[in-house]
Amino acid sequence: MLRFEILATDGHARRGRLTLNHGVVETPQFMPVGTYGTVKGVLPRDLEAMGAQIILGNTFHLWMRPGLDVLRAFGGLHRFEGWQRPILTDSGGFQVWSLGGADGKGRRITEQGVHFASPVNGDKLFLTPELSMQIQTVLNSDIVMQFDECTPYQTAGHVTTEHEARASMELSLRWARRSKAEFERLANPNALFGIVQGGMYEPLREASVAALAELDLPGYAVGGVSVGEPKDDMRRLVAHTPHRLPQGKPRYLMGVGTPEDLVDGVANGVDLFDCVMPTRNARNGHLFTRFGDLKIRNAKHRADTRALDETCTCYACRGTTLPDGSVRGGFSRAYLHHLDRCGEMLAPMLATIHNLHYYLNLMREVRAALDAGTFAALRERFAADRARGVD
Amino acid sequence: MLRFEILATDGHARRGRLTLNHGVVETPQFMPVGTYGTVKGVLPRDLEAMGAQIILGNTFHLWMRPGLDVLRAFGGLHRFEGWQRPILTDSGGFQVWSLGGADGKGRRITEQGVHFASPVNGDKLFLTPELSMQIQTVLNSDIVMQFDECTPYQTAGHVTTEHEARASMELSLRWARRSKAEFERLANPNALFGIVQGGMYEPLREASVAALAELDLPGYAVGGVSVGEPKDDMRRLVAHTPHRLPQGKPRYLMGVGTPEDLVDGVANGVDLFDCVMPTRNARNGHLFTRFGDLKIRNAKHRADTRALDETCTCYACRGTTLPDGSVRGGFSRAYLHHLDRCGEMLAPMLATIHNLHYYLNLMREVRAALDAGTFAALRERFAADRARGVD
Repeated sequence: MLRFEILATDGHARRGRLTLNHGVVETPQFMPVGTYGTVKGVLPRDLEAMGAQIILGNTFHLWMRPGLDVLRAFGGLHRFEGWQRPILTDSGGFQVWSLGGADGKGRRITEQGVHFASPVNGDKLFLTPELSMQIQTVLNSDIVMQFDECTPYQTAGHVTTEHEARASMELSLRWARRSKAEFERLANPNALFGIVQGGMYEPLREASVAALAELDLPGYAVGGVSVGEPKDDMRRLVAHTPHRLPQGKPRYLMGVGTPEDLVDGVANGVDLFDCVMPTRNARNGHLFTRFGDLKIRNAKHRADTRALDETCTCYACRGTTLPDGSVRGGFSRAYLHHLDRCGEMLAPMLATIHNLHYYLNLMREVRAALDAGTFAALRERFAADRARGVD
Repeated sequence: MLRFEILATDGHARRGRLTLNHGVVETPQFMPVGTYGTVKGVLPRDLEAMGAQIILGNTFHLWMRPGLDVLRAFGGLHRFEGWQRPILTDSGGFQVWSLGGADGKGRRITEQGVHFASPVNGDKLFLTPELSMQIQTVLNSDIVMQFDECTPYQTAGHVTTEHEARASMELSLRWARRSKAEFERLANPNALFGIVQGGMYEPLREASVAALAELDLPGYAVGGVSVGEPKDDMRRLVAHTPHRLPQGKPRYLMGVGTPEDLVDGVANGVDLFDCVMPTRNARNGHLFTRFGDLKIRNAKHRADTRALDETCTCYACRGTTLPDGSVRGGFSRAYLHHLDRCGEMLAPMLATIHNLHYYLNLMREVRAALDAGTFAALRERFAADRARGVD
C-alpha cells in the first residue's frame, strides 16, 4: 500500500506524508543506503534514533548475498536486517550497469533482460523485469523499483547520443510495463515506482514522463542522473523533470547528492533522495557540517578540542543526554583526527553518525520551513552558512 | 585515591568494591582494552550501557599518538576519549617488549630504562620509570602501572633461565621503587600498582611478592603470564601467585584470558582482568557464548535464524527494549554470517558488543554467586555449559 498526502507547497517544493506498509515517511526525506542489508557502520537502533524513516537496500547485492533462500527464511529483508521501518529497494538495473565496466563489455542487454557474470563467483546470470519483481517481492520492500536500463552518460568515452538514449528509454518503458504486470501477478502488497529515463535530452525525458504517467503507478523516480555527467547537465535535468511528474504522487531523485543538491532538488519538486555520499565520505574522513565540509585528516585538527560542528546535536558532536541528565559522548575534532590516523573503526562509526545526522537533520529543517512557509529564507541561510566555511 | 573493600570471600575468591577517582568498580571485574583511546568497534555509550566499569588505555601507544600535548589539552584521557568512568593504563613495558621482536633486537635495556625506535616514525626513544609515571600522570589514569620489564617466556627459541628471570625480576623491583618515587614526586592523585614478575619460577615470584609488599602500594598485578608459555605453566602460576599478594589490596592478572581463565583466576584470588580476546576475536568472527565458542564464518550458519546465544541479553542477540515496549535489533547467526562474508563493519561491531557483553556478564554472574555463597556451584555449571558446545 501507499498513501501520499501533500501538506504544503512552495513553488514546486512540497511538504508531504507517505504512508507505507511498514510506517510513515515525512517528505522531503533522505534515505540512507544499506546496500547489503546494513547501512555501513551504524547500528540499526542508532539509525532509528537519529530519525531515519526509510532506508534503501540493493536488490542485486542481496540476490547475490545472502541469497533468496536465506531472505525467504526471514520473511524478507526487514527481519533479516533488524529494521522495522520502511525499506525501498532498487531494481538491480543500476548495479548491472555499473558492473558492466566503463566499456560496458561485462554485460549484454537484450529485449528480454540483461546477461552478465556474477561478481561473486563468475556464474552466468540473467536478470529480467520479472525476476527483479520476484526478488523484490521476497525482500518485501515497501517501495519496489521497476527494472530499468540506466542510460549511461558515456561509454568508453563515447557520449550517449539522442538516438541511443531514446532506444534505451523506450526499452525501460517496455520493462516498466513488464514490471507492473509481474508485480500485479505476484499480488505484491507494496508499491511499485516507475523510473524516468531519457539521458540528457529533455524531449526524451518528457516522453518518458508521459508514457509512465499512463501506467498510473503509485510513485515515480528520476533515474539516469548523477551518472558521470557534468554538474550543469545534472542541474538542468533536476530543474526540468521532477515537477513534470504527476502532482499527487511521490517523486524520488535517484542517487543524488550533496547537501546543496538536496535543497535544490526539493525546490524542484523532489520528495525522496538517496545517496551513498554521507556514509561513503564519512569513511574517508569527509564530514558535512552547517558551515561547509571538513576534512578530518587535515593536520590542523590535531589538537582542536572543538566539536566537528558546534551547532550539531548528533552523538558524535554533542553526546547523548541520559534520563539522569548526564551526558555520554561528545567528541572533538582532535579525537576524530586521532582515530582516523590510527585506523580505528570508531572513526568511520562516529563520522557516519555525524554525516547521516547532518543529512537527516537538513531534511528536517527543510520540512519545518515548508510547514512554516519560510523555505525561501531557509535556502538563503543554508547557502550563506555553507559558503562561510568551517572555522 | 583508591579504597578497596572485600565484601565476601569463598576460598581464595573475593567479592570486592574498588573506589577510584572516577567511580566505583565492583570486583571481580573484566576491563575491556582501549589501546589507542578507543575500545575497538564500540561507541563509549554502548560500552557503558553494557556495564563496563573500567577500561584500559595503553601508555606507550597514547604517548606515540596523539601525543602528550594533545592529551594535556584535554586534561587527560577521560575527556579526550569521552569516557567518564575509571581508566587503568599499563606502563609501556609490555609494548616495549613486544615491539622488540621475537629476537629482542629492536630494543636495548639498561639499568636506566629502555632504548628503542618509534614504530611510528623510527625516532630513537628512551622510556624510563620516571617518564612512564609522567605520561600516566598526563593521562590522569585512575590506576597507574609501575614501569616493569615483562620477562619473556623465550627469546629467539631460548627459554628464559631462572638466572635470567631473577635479574629481570630484580630490575623490575628497582623500577618499582623508582616508579613509586616519581609518582609521589608528581603528587599524582591516583593509585599506583606494582607488578610481580619472576618468569615461570615460583621462588622468584615469591621474592617479587615479598619485596613489592614492602613498598606498600595500593594494589598489585601479576605480570609476565600469557607471554607465550605452555598453558599448564600459566595455570601453575595463576594457582601460585595471586593469593600470596597482600590480602586487603586489589589484585590484577594482566592480559588474561579465556572465559575459563577468568573463572579460574577468580578462584585463585584475582580481582581484575584485562584481555584483547573478546574484542580481537570478535573481529575474526569468533564469538563466546554460554555453550562454548561459535565461529560465525562457518557455512552452517548461513540460513540459521537463531540468535548467537539464545540465553544472551546483549543488543546483538536480543535487541534493545525501548520505553514504549518495542524492541530494536536482535540479530541472527545468518545475518552475522552474511555481514562477515560481505566484509561489512556491522559484523565486528555486533560481534564486539556480544563478546564484551559475554565477558562482563560472566563477571556479573561470578559476583552474584560470590554474594550468594554459590561460587562452587557456578563454577560447575559454567564448566558443564561451556563443554556442551553450541547447538
